[in-house]
Amino acid sequence: MALNKKPYKGCRDFFPKGMRVRNYLFHHMCDVAEKFGFEAYDGPLLEEVDLYKAKSGEELINDQIYSFTDRGDRNVAIRPEMTPTVARMVANIHKQETKPIRWYSIPNLMRYEKPQRGRVREHWQFNVDIFGAPENLGELEVVSLVIQFLKSFGAKSDMFAILLNDRTLVDAVFNDILNLEAESALKLYKVIDKAKKVSPGKLDIMIREILLTEEQFIIFKEYLALNSIESLTKFATQNNIAQKSESFIQFLTMCQELELSEFIEYDPTIVRGLDYYTGVVFEIFDKHPDNNRAIAGGGAYANLLKIFNEEPLGGIGFGLGDVTLRDFLETHKLLPDLSKASHDVFVVNVEDEHNLYNMTISNQLRELGIKVESHLGKIKFNKIFKLAQSKGHSKILIIEDQGDGIELELKDLTTNKNTKIDINKINQIKDYIKG
Amino acid sequence: MALNKKPYKGCRDFFPKGMRVRNYLFHHMCDVAEKFGFEAYDGPLLEEVDLYKAKSGEELINDQIYSFTDRGDRNVAIRPEMTPTVARMVANIHKQETKPIRWYSIPNLMRYEKPQRGRVREHWQFNVDIFGAPENLGELEVVSLVIQFLKSFGAKSDMFAILLNDRTLVDAVFNDILNLEAESALKLYKVIDKAKKVSPGKLDIMIREILLTEEQFIIFKEYLALNSIESLTKFATQNNIAQKSESFIQFLTMCQELELSEFIEYDPTIVRGLDYYTGVVFEIFDKHPDNNRAIAGGGAYANLLKIFNEEPLGGIGFGLGDVTLRDFLETHKLLPDLSKASHDVFVVNVEDEHNLYNMTISNQLRELGIKVESHLGKIKFNKIFKLAQSKGHSKILIIEDQGDGIELELKDLTTNKNTKIDINKINQIKDYIKG
Repeated sequence: MALNKKPYKGCRDFFPKGMRVRNYLFHHMCDVAEKFGFEAYDGPLLEEVDLYKAKSGEELINDQIYSFTDRGDRNVAIRPEMTPTVARMVANIHKQETKPIRWYSIPNLMRYEKPQRGRVREHWQFNVDIFGAPENLGELEVVSLVIQFLKSFGAKSDMFAILLNDRTLVDAVFNDILNLEAESALKLYKVIDKAKKVSPGKLDIMIREILLTEEQFIIFKEYLALNSIESLTKFATQNNIAQKSESFIQFLTMCQELELSEFIEYDPTIVRGLDYYTGVVFEIFDKHPDNNRAIAGGGAYANLLKIFNEEPLGGIGFGLGDVTLRDFLETHKLLPDLSKASHDVFVVNVEDEHNLYNMTISNQLRELGIKVESHLGKIKFNKIFKLAQSKGHSKILIIEDQGDGIELELKDLTTNKNTKIDINKINQIKDYIKG
Repeated sequence: MALNKKPYKGCRDFFPKGMRVRNYLFHHMCDVAEKFGFEAYDGPLLEEVDLYKAKSGEELINDQIYSFTDRGDRNVAIRPEMTPTVARMVANIHKQETKPIRWYSIPNLMRYEKPQRGRVREHWQFNVDIFGAPENLGELEVVSLVIQFLKSFGAKSDMFAILLNDRTLVDAVFNDILNLEAESALKLYKVIDKAKKVSPGKLDIMIREILLTEEQFIIFKEYLALNSIESLTKFATQNNIAQKSESFIQFLTMCQELELSEFIEYDPTIVRGLDYYTGVVFEIFDKHPDNNRAIAGGGAYANLLKIFNEEPLGGIGFGLGDVTLRDFLETHKLLPDLSKASHDVFVVNVEDEHNLYNMTISNQLRELGIKVESHLGKIKFNKIFKLAQSKGHSKILIIEDQGDGIELELKDLTTNKNTKIDINKINQIKDYIKG
């Protein structure tokens, strides 16, 4: 029986056209990370399941992780996310490293998702983390990086926003103002997380199930309506949580001073689930009506190294998947045309006796740094141009012999200029091509 | 209990220093592949086990593969090699593509190896394949690519050789000259594969166990002693296999005409195990006395698409792992010093009040394309230079205010030159930095 030609469910085959898009995204990721002084790292594809158990939610372990027992009886998983790995790696070296530690990675990750638009089982995620930065400065740098990253594709402030909040502030509202028990606080966290996904009426009902007094309800609704530094400052002062909101207000002010205002918004409903965040949290929100949703998120965490018995080292990070990024760019028409390969020159010969000469000259051009597609074997003259165009070539080097020895002609399909090349001066071709 | 900080057995954590080496290798891989007109592709991390069963040896499936049953009851494996995936992908598109199809990839692969020098469980492999090329021309291009790849690191012909043979020729020796049954041929293949690993006396004993007549033994030893186009041509003519060796002899002659002679050798013991090769096979052999072994191999295959019920499409490919490549380069001292990161400039301020100004100017420089490491938070003047040097910076931009407003000074640690920068002419910094 013939084998299946499809890729494994929920995974993608990257044919050259799709791979060019992926590489375009990766190139922008590496470029922005390096401009911000972040260094590339990577970890293993497999980690012991205990690492995820210690950090991640139950849902991940029970339903979404690709785990199995290896031949040495170790319970391992294909990495579903990078944060546990980066925490483990930083735990190894943080004592001897100068701070801040700035790292980025683009690992392939797997989750057992039900495949649908924007959800696949294997994706690549741009992970950026900074450890041991002074208060608020690491957060500012990461938010600056995200903005400059999206701007590098041509994204403008009418296309996306960074929605910001602070878990310390949310905790102060829950504990100091609402006096919630741990269980109620947990429930209310989940309600906030859904605040934008349900109708206002439904939201009120969900809130009233947790907040039993009218006074609690009114204050919490007031909190949810906050939308500026000014309203937050006033709310914090009136409710005696000024001290606990000071750092976040300072952070928002610094964002303004850095001229990031057009890209950022304070949003009291951002909490990033029940994740490990302890400070500033944020989401990159797509403003397009067809794609109105968070495309990525991140935040500050204080206790990631605890599971390794290491001293606390604060960090800030975010993760952005290749699928959601591509959706965002396509929705806003920010992806360039990558349907053709980009070679420098197409080298062809019209007689079989020049097959080897074609390869000789192609190898020489490659040694000069030129990207050459050599047509292996002769090609009929009248087929050259159609083939070159279908492959996206704009320059063709034709090898011919009309009786007086080998002749070389470089044809530029863009300018329609033809140039005879002296076969003893191959180096000249470089000037015409790279010119 | 604290969690384990080590990576999963046989896998590597790539801290920035190790990652710079990996990226250096990958950069050379992409660069040479693109110069030869090969396009990047990638497939999924997991494939169904049936795909490997259909193609690979028993050892791989039984002992070396990371396989498990997924939540949907599919028997899947983490890819141990890329060839089955590339065959599956090409089977999807070969009918409508113009030939030759040139593809390359650098996937992470996993095998359940016993970790030792040069052997890890997860490695990255440079895979290069060309499909549908005219006879011998694809082989020539791939061999040219391998040579230019190793030369790009500075490798010379005294450091490595490409050892070449042809499975068609070996089959002709086994079937037409020695008249072996299938079972004996299989055994003799395994003996050839070990020819260079055992003593000559031991080899003779192994051969005599299979070849029962003295005549067979003598002819086979004659075959094993072949070492040139001339001796091969003579042997083939004398033993009536001239026709079956014609293509390979032509190939070796073309290698000479392409001036690849100093890098290639005909080696009758190269067969590449019991793999799927059907034509030219080769190994990249490290000539260094400390590392005297094959670092990679490849060859031509005619029937890879058969398992998908597709028409035959010949291909030639090779795979080269990151670990063996690194060992080769280190043995020959061809790896540059990558112990430090390479940023363009280190931006520091000596007063806390300039923290935000540091970030502002750093962001502006990044928009100009400059790689900036910003020191977050003030740093004492007398600590700047030691820190900059330990991080490998050669240029430092210092933000100071000695009472007359902010002053910027760019210090070049290489030339010891200091340059005052007008704070309204930040763009000038680009000229000083990028030269």
